[in-house]
Amino acid sequence: MKFNDRLREIFQKKDSLLAIGLDADLEKLPPFLMDFESPITEFNKSIINATSDLVCAYKINTAFYEQFGIQGYRSMKKTIELIPDDVLTLIDGKRADIGHSSEKYAKALFRESHADAVTVNPYLGSDSVAPFLEDESKGVFLLCLTSNPGAKDFQHLKIENGGTLFERVAEKAVTWNKNNNIGLVVGGTQSDDLKRIRDIAPELPILLPGIGAQGGDLKKSLEFGCDRNREGIIITISRSILYVSDDLEFAGKSREVALKMKNEINQIRKSKK
Amino acid sequence: MKFNDRLREIFQKKDSLLAIGLDADLEKLPPFLMDFESPITEFNKSIINATSDLVCAYKINTAFYEQFGIQGYRSMKKTIELIPDDVLTLIDGKRADIGHSSEKYAKALFRESHADAVTVNPYLGSDSVAPFLEDESKGVFLLCLTSNPGAKDFQHLKIENGGTLFERVAEKAVTWNKNNNIGLVVGGTQSDDLKRIRDIAPELPILLPGIGAQGGDLKKSLEFGCDRNREGIIITISRSILYVSDDLEFAGKSREVALKMKNEINQIRKSKK
Repeated sequence: MKFNDRLREIFQKKDSLLAIGLDADLEKLPPFLMDFESPITEFNKSIINATSDLVCAYKINTAFYEQFGIQGYRSMKKTIELIPDDVLTLIDGKRADIGHSSEKYAKALFRESHADAVTVNPYLGSDSVAPFLEDESKGVFLLCLTSNPGAKDFQHLKIENGGTLFERVAEKAVTWNKNNNIGLVVGGTQSDDLKRIRDIAPELPILLPGIGAQGGDLKKSLEFGCDRNREGIIITISRSILYVSDDLEFAGKSREVALKMKNEINQIRKSKK
Repeated sequence: MKFNDRLREIFQKKDSLLAIGLDADLEKLPPFLMDFESPITEFNKSIINATSDLVCAYKINTAFYEQFGIQGYRSMKKTIELIPDDVLTLIDGKRADIGHSSEKYAKALFRESHADAVTVNPYLGSDSVAPFLEDESKGVFLLCLTSNPGAKDFQHLKIENGGTLFERVAEKAVTWNKNNNIGLVVGGTQSDDLKRIRDIAPELPILLPGIGAQGGDLKKSLEFGCDRNREGIIITISRSILYVSDDLEFAGKSREVALKMKNEINQIRKSKK
C-alpha cells in the first residue's frame, strides 16, 4: 500500500493525529532508571507501553541517539523493535546527500532501521530525495518550513518571480509525489505560513513539530494544516509529554498528557466539520 | 588553534590539497578482502597506510557506513582511529537540525566520533549551524553549491534583490565565521559559479568534491577556487582513487593515482604564482 494511503488508514483506525517524539535526554529521565543497563531503552519501553493506543506514530530523532555512539544506536534499534505494528515509526534524521549517497541512507533507514517514514532535507534537490521515494510503501517528509528561529535565514527568502523558498519546496514536493508517499515538515510555530503551504499542497500529509515546548499554536495549526478530511497532519510532541514526572509512575502521567492532547486535537479538528 | 589556521598549517606541512573520500562500497572492494572479519576496515587501513603522507585529510561519508547498521558504525570508528594525527578527519554527514538537536549531532560527531571537521546542511539556518561552530578547533563546511544535478532545484534559485540561494549561503557563512572555523562545500562540477563564491568568501576554505568520477574540471576548480595564497581548497576524490585495481597490490596502485593527483594539483596551483 502507498504510504500516504497507509497513513490515512492509521489516522482513522487510531482516531488520532498525535505522534510522540521519543527524544530521550539522559539528564531528564527519572533518576531511578539509571540503574538499568540502558536507561533510554527502558524509558522508551515504558512510554510506548503506556501510550501506543493513543498515537498514530512515534518519531525517533537520530541526533538524540547518535550522541551516545554505538550504545545509542543500539537503544534506537531496540526502541524501534518495541513499536507495535499499528503505529508508524518515523525516523527524523533530516538526511540527504547526492543521489549515489542518498541511496545508502535510504538503505540504512528503511532496511537496517525499519523506518516507515523519514524526514529529508531538500537543499540538494531532486536526485537527493529520489532514492527515499522509490519504495511506495515508505514515506518521506521533506523539510519545508521549520519551527526554529533560523528558518528565516533561507526558508523565508523571497524568490524572483514570486513566492518564498519554502513555497518552492512545497511546489516541488507536489511534483515529486508520483508514488503518493511524500509529505512536508512544517513547524507548528509558523501557523500563518502553514495556510499557504496547505494551498500549494492540498493532498500532502504534514508532519508538524513545535507544539508544546517550542510554543506553537495547536488551534491555528489544525485550522490551517488539516486537509479536506480534517486529517492529513501529524502533530508530534516530545518534551511536554515525555518529561511530566520523574517518579515511578512517570509513564502513566505521560499517558494522561498524551490522552488529553489526543482529545484536544480531535475536538478542534472535528468541531470544524 | 582555530580550525582554519590549523588547516592552513596542514596544507603547508603536507604540501597537499588532496583529500581521499573513504567511501567504501562492498561491491567494489577487491574480492580477497571478503575473507576478513571487516572487509571495509581492512580496505581503509590499506588505503590509509599507502596514502597518508600524500593527503591533508580523509573524508568519511556517513551514508556509506550507516547502510551496514551497527557493523558499519564500528568500521567507521575503527577507520577514524587509523587516521594519523597530521591528517584531518572530515566527517561528511550533512547533518543539521533545530539548535537543541544540532547540539546532539555536534556531540556525536566531534566527541563520539572525533571528527576534526564536519559538513552541515544550511537549510535550517543559523541556530542549526551554531552548535557545530562553538569549538573553534573544529571545522564546519557548510553545503553551498553541490555537485549533483538536483543542485539546480533550489540552490540556483534567484533571490529577490539579487543573487542566488547559494550566494546567500556563502554570504551568511562569512558573517557566521566568528571563530575562524567555517568553510564551504562547492561541487567541482560547478566551476563557473565557484568564482562568484570565492569573491563573496575570499578567506573561507572550500571543500570541493566532484573531481574524478563525477567529471568536475580540476584546472578550473583550482583557478577559481584557490585563495590568494593559492591554497584554501580541499580537493576530495573518492572512487577514482579507491577503485583502481582489485588485486593484492590495490593500495599501491591507489597510491600511484593519489600521488599523480597531488602533483597535478600542485603543478596547476603553483604555476599561477
